[in-house]
Amino acid sequence: MIFKRIDQLDIDFFTELLSSSNIKLDPDQLEQYAHDETEDLVYSPEVVLLPESVDQLSAIISYCNKMNIAVTPQGARTGLSGGALPLYGGVALSMEKFDKILDIDTKNGQVTVEPAVITQVLQEAVAEKGLFYPPDPASRGSCSIGGNLAENSGGPKAVKYGVTNEYVLNLEVVLPSGEVIWTGANVLKNATGYNLTQLIVGSEGTLGIITKAVLKLIPHPKMNMLMLVPFRSAEQACEAVAAIFQERIVPSGMEFMERDALIWTRDFINDDSIQIPDDIQAHLLIEVDGNDESTLMKDCEAIMSVVEKFDVGEILFADSQAQKDKLWNLRRKVGEAVKSQSIYKEEDTVVPRFELPKLLKGVKDIGRRYGFQSVCYGHAGDGNLHINIIKGELSEDVWNNELSKAIREIFDLTVSLGGTISGEHGIGHVQKNFMDIPFGDVELKLMKGIKDLFDPKGILNPGKIFPD
Amino acid sequence: MIFKRIDQLDIDFFTELLSSSNIKLDPDQLEQYAHDETEDLVYSPEVVLLPESVDQLSAIISYCNKMNIAVTPQGARTGLSGGALPLYGGVALSMEKFDKILDIDTKNGQVTVEPAVITQVLQEAVAEKGLFYPPDPASRGSCSIGGNLAENSGGPKAVKYGVTNEYVLNLEVVLPSGEVIWTGANVLKNATGYNLTQLIVGSEGTLGIITKAVLKLIPHPKMNMLMLVPFRSAEQACEAVAAIFQERIVPSGMEFMERDALIWTRDFINDDSIQIPDDIQAHLLIEVDGNDESTLMKDCEAIMSVVEKFDVGEILFADSQAQKDKLWNLRRKVGEAVKSQSIYKEEDTVVPRFELPKLLKGVKDIGRRYGFQSVCYGHAGDGNLHINIIKGELSEDVWNNELSKAIREIFDLTVSLGGTISGEHGIGHVQKNFMDIPFGDVELKLMKGIKDLFDPKGILNPGKIFPD
Repeated sequence: MIFKRIDQLDIDFFTELLSSSNIKLDPDQLEQYAHDETEDLVYSPEVVLLPESVDQLSAIISYCNKMNIAVTPQGARTGLSGGALPLYGGVALSMEKFDKILDIDTKNGQVTVEPAVITQVLQEAVAEKGLFYPPDPASRGSCSIGGNLAENSGGPKAVKYGVTNEYVLNLEVVLPSGEVIWTGANVLKNATGYNLTQLIVGSEGTLGIITKAVLKLIPHPKMNMLMLVPFRSAEQACEAVAAIFQERIVPSGMEFMERDALIWTRDFINDDSIQIPDDIQAHLLIEVDGNDESTLMKDCEAIMSVVEKFDVGEILFADSQAQKDKLWNLRRKVGEAVKSQSIYKEEDTVVPRFELPKLLKGVKDIGRRYGFQSVCYGHAGDGNLHINIIKGELSEDVWNNELSKAIREIFDLTVSLGGTISGEHGIGHVQKNFMDIPFGDVELKLMKGIKDLFDPKGILNPGKIFPD
Repeated sequence: MIFKRIDQLDIDFFTELLSSSNIKLDPDQLEQYAHDETEDLVYSPEVVLLPESVDQLSAIISYCNKMNIAVTPQGARTGLSGGALPLYGGVALSMEKFDKILDIDTKNGQVTVEPAVITQVLQEAVAEKGLFYPPDPASRGSCSIGGNLAENSGGPKAVKYGVTNEYVLNLEVVLPSGEVIWTGANVLKNATGYNLTQLIVGSEGTLGIITKAVLKLIPHPKMNMLMLVPFRSAEQACEAVAAIFQERIVPSGMEFMERDALIWTRDFINDDSIQIPDDIQAHLLIEVDGNDESTLMKDCEAIMSVVEKFDVGEILFADSQAQKDKLWNLRRKVGEAVKSQSIYKEEDTVVPRFELPKLLKGVKDIGRRYGFQSVCYGHAGDGNLHINIIKGELSEDVWNNELSKAIREIFDLTVSLGGTISGEHGIGHVQKNFMDIPFGDVELKLMKGIKDLFDPKGILNPGKIFPD
């Protein structure tokens, strides 16, 4: 793909449209928008634009479309698949000015929100009214709703409440042509034409730019209970996950952490309150929620009687909100802790949950053959395993040349188990050349056809999703 | 659109492919496949084909594509929007031989099913294993999963559990080219490329033909409670719906029936056990479900205290399974009862639930102006109101020429309230010329572009969804 480089005439056009503070050209500023949270990747845009209205955004994108300038939409740049990297330079279109919660409609249980609202800010705003927006990625304190929509984000609550796409009723989207559409209606059920809403969700900013979202809210559960269960066998921890569901219990959180993930995180956040005996290989963090204490107690007892059939250590029940916060913080910080330890690559595999033990065992086998260490954690209730491959002592040659073969083996295994290569991080830049594993030529041709329909010149977030 | 008529050479081709009993040409047979449950509409196919395998189906459709023969996929022909009508003759492609439940995977809570499995059959098969497939249209005893997928069907449980599309993990689809794809993976979360699964669900057989579906199952709730609440004001019944949700209660059913709907149904099924005093305008049928009796009792008490703030008659609690069955049967038979009473047109409006009273009032106002009677019922918890416009004493002129103006007014109102023109029946044939109301040219052009991408010659289910 070849795009026009940005020149003074383009800058003049943008200057007429935007206030000067919303156009960033200094190298320091460009550097800030040159990365997200994906590995150590850096791709600098030529200019950063911060539109403040749908009209401005529409004018920018239709201009870039006409002039053949690459446009990379950016949210909070917390993504893990490189979806926000301006691979081809051009315009980094930061949505950060679209940061308003426009309407919390308590009568209908809906919220209309702009994309740059931070997920946790939205959750807290609606919780004040007794309402619940469940999808919350580990990064919920820093990621934005727009990015969550673009990547179809999940998070720990997905096991009970589903991922982002299940909460999206209607989207306002600016197309590469500059035209503005609404994808659906503000309703809970809709059988009116093709589902453009669900086509936009998870499309990683390659089809259009979301400027407003109408999201479904549900009543906020009144209470929850949390326990941390140590397992002497990591594979048994994975087996316990499916066993709990087979008892007809649906936890509101069911997180898996390998030994190293927890130890590294404990060290990273200087929290030594959790004891991790030498013989413990993995932990499950299990939450149940609801409105009735006795029901939750029954659920916890049922979960206990399931996990105690496995080889477990001493189970920790969180007995205060402070302890719950501490345990969840441990889980939420795993990604950062691993990142602080070593250069790493993260894979976002997902399989039917009963297949988790096979996936984990397979990953370790592959690691032994290729000589890499991996630290695994993730949303076990959904079968979603984050595999962190640690560079550690690996040579540059192995890291740069051999590792993609190992990743291909991991993804082959994942797909052979009925799974796929991304559960919640998206394909973006770093996984695109593995898209031939979950999909054949026909599926990819259809997806490419959809891309061409929305964006005939391919200016919007180029270099993402599709194999080179 | 002009399609090739079927001639002897085509029949010869089909005869080589299928056993003779799977090719239907007799006028009696053709008549059987010439209608679904939509009004009194009849469009005869030229031939009915019953493929028995994906290979046969693929061969038929690629042949028809090459020869420019119209193909109308058909499920159980219980649809209410004319989606299965062979408007252009050609081939009626009945999926009835694809009737197997292939695998109930209790370990992962999934089922793999062929499209002709009757919804209720599937529900009962998985319930035997303690699992729950919630979407159940009123016609669940006769409709099939394939049709439910094509129309994104809802039903009474949708208010708590969501509609069909929330239970679809992965689909095997035969494209008009004859190529076979899988749209996703057998996983609960998926951020891998564009969401082809959700594009196929609700596409009404216009993009491809579903041959297998992998559906999500959840633990079956252990019990439920059901009550019938009579209201002296129909609008107050609608108001009570939103009021119940504002108390943080999520019923598993929340059905609205106008007086006439209930009386006609009672007469239709010869059930006089329900008393309907003269001053009652409408009823709400409210179900709660769960695993704990005391919690359900609390929910019922909370619902009682909400509805008693309105002008209600004597509330009936179902005190046995037989009485529950009787009440649900009343609700499920409303459609047939109305149909038995008069020629009618049914609109499938949906709005945010708090707007229901405005919609109902507006419909009655429009009825008064145009001189038609309407009987309304539906899934009030979802804001989904089925409006049955009764022909009764209306002149042929008004029925044939004026009524579409009235329907347009109803849909304009629906959309102005944040709603849309179909909640669960689909657009199909009978609503297609109203698609300019919920969508503008840009949205429709995108949808048409998607249609052209999947089906460049437009042979698959022609004349559906898009305005003439």
